[in-house]
Amino acid sequence: MAREMIRQGGRSARIQEEVHKAVNALLKTRDRSEITVPMVAELAGVTPSTLYRRWGDLSQLLADVAVAHMRPIGEPEDTGNMQHDIETFIVQYAEEMSSKVGRQMLADIIGSGGGSATVKCCGFTYLHLETLNHRALARGEAGFSVDDAVDVVVAPVIYHILFEDREPTPDYCRERVERLFQR
Amino acid sequence: MAREMIRQGGRSARIQEEVHKAVNALLKTRDRSEITVPMVAELAGVTPSTLYRRWGDLSQLLADVAVAHMRPIGEPEDTGNMQHDIETFIVQYAEEMSSKVGRQMLADIIGSGGGSATVKCCGFTYLHLETLNHRALARGEAGFSVDDAVDVVVAPVIYHILFEDREPTPDYCRERVERLFQR
Repeated sequence: MAREMIRQGGRSARIQEEVHKAVNALLKTRDRSEITVPMVAELAGVTPSTLYRRWGDLSQLLADVAVAHMRPIGEPEDTGNMQHDIETFIVQYAEEMSSKVGRQMLADIIGSGGGSATVKCCGFTYLHLETLNHRALARGEAGFSVDDAVDVVVAPVIYHILFEDREPTPDYCRERVERLFQR
Repeated sequence: MAREMIRQGGRSARIQEEVHKAVNALLKTRDRSEITVPMVAELAGVTPSTLYRRWGDLSQLLADVAVAHMRPIGEPEDTGNMQHDIETFIVQYAEEMSSKVGRQMLADIIGSGGGSATVKCCGFTYLHLETLNHRALARGEAGFSVDDAVDVVVAPVIYHILFEDREPTPDYCRERVERLFQR
């Protein structure tokens, strides 16, 4: 029984890997509006019904692939100072998310109409900020409220990227961080 | 020549109206993942190529329809006091945008991957806030920075709706407005 479970987990993970690979390969050669579930299924070597059962529809699948790209690959940079750590994080984040690829990932995640992709996506941001806060406290700094940092720093940067009303420049990012520590 | 232009404008507006009506009718009876461009074209009585030429693809068309629903239908409520006007606006906005229909509109607008829909959508918010600011100044109140109101009040509310990490309750909305006037 335990072995069965492990084998099933393995197969499930393997399907996910093949399907993600297929989506990424298709996105390299085609416009996303041309991609269909049967196309992904054929390339991944699974049936379309496997995809529908697991992901619901194409937009959920694209969101899942986008979230996988958002997963941070390492610890946030340690600059030795809390405010500077947050600045470094948000300047990089704004740069990445306002790139063509970043915008497309956000569109895929939000365009899926909610569900686990959006929660996972901002979960990465919370984790990242929590790491910075723990690090600050360990250094003997005062620390900061992660919720406040999301409201004052992250949310406006993401808003301007999504609605394209204003460039989230490095200077703008640093102004937001200053505002976080203004009380 | 001028007449030609006017007739073309009329035809163009008529096509837009029929296409929007077709999309709205389809959205009432079907899941949006089932809707296709040929389906909309047939119901609207136009060719699919008309739709592709005018809207690019289905996601752009859905975004255009969503923005049409976002267009405000009247002036913002006048409560006689600047801070209260902003509170009233943001509490209503948060309630509307976090409803099922509101979330779907945001997903359609942002999922289209940028372009005119996102700019138009936040343009309505800026206009609304500018109206509140002019009204405050006309009353002899100090007025407020519309950019600040977007950063401090609107952006966090929209962030929490999109990423589903936190409920934008009326109390939360009022806290954000208080923060705007805290200096």
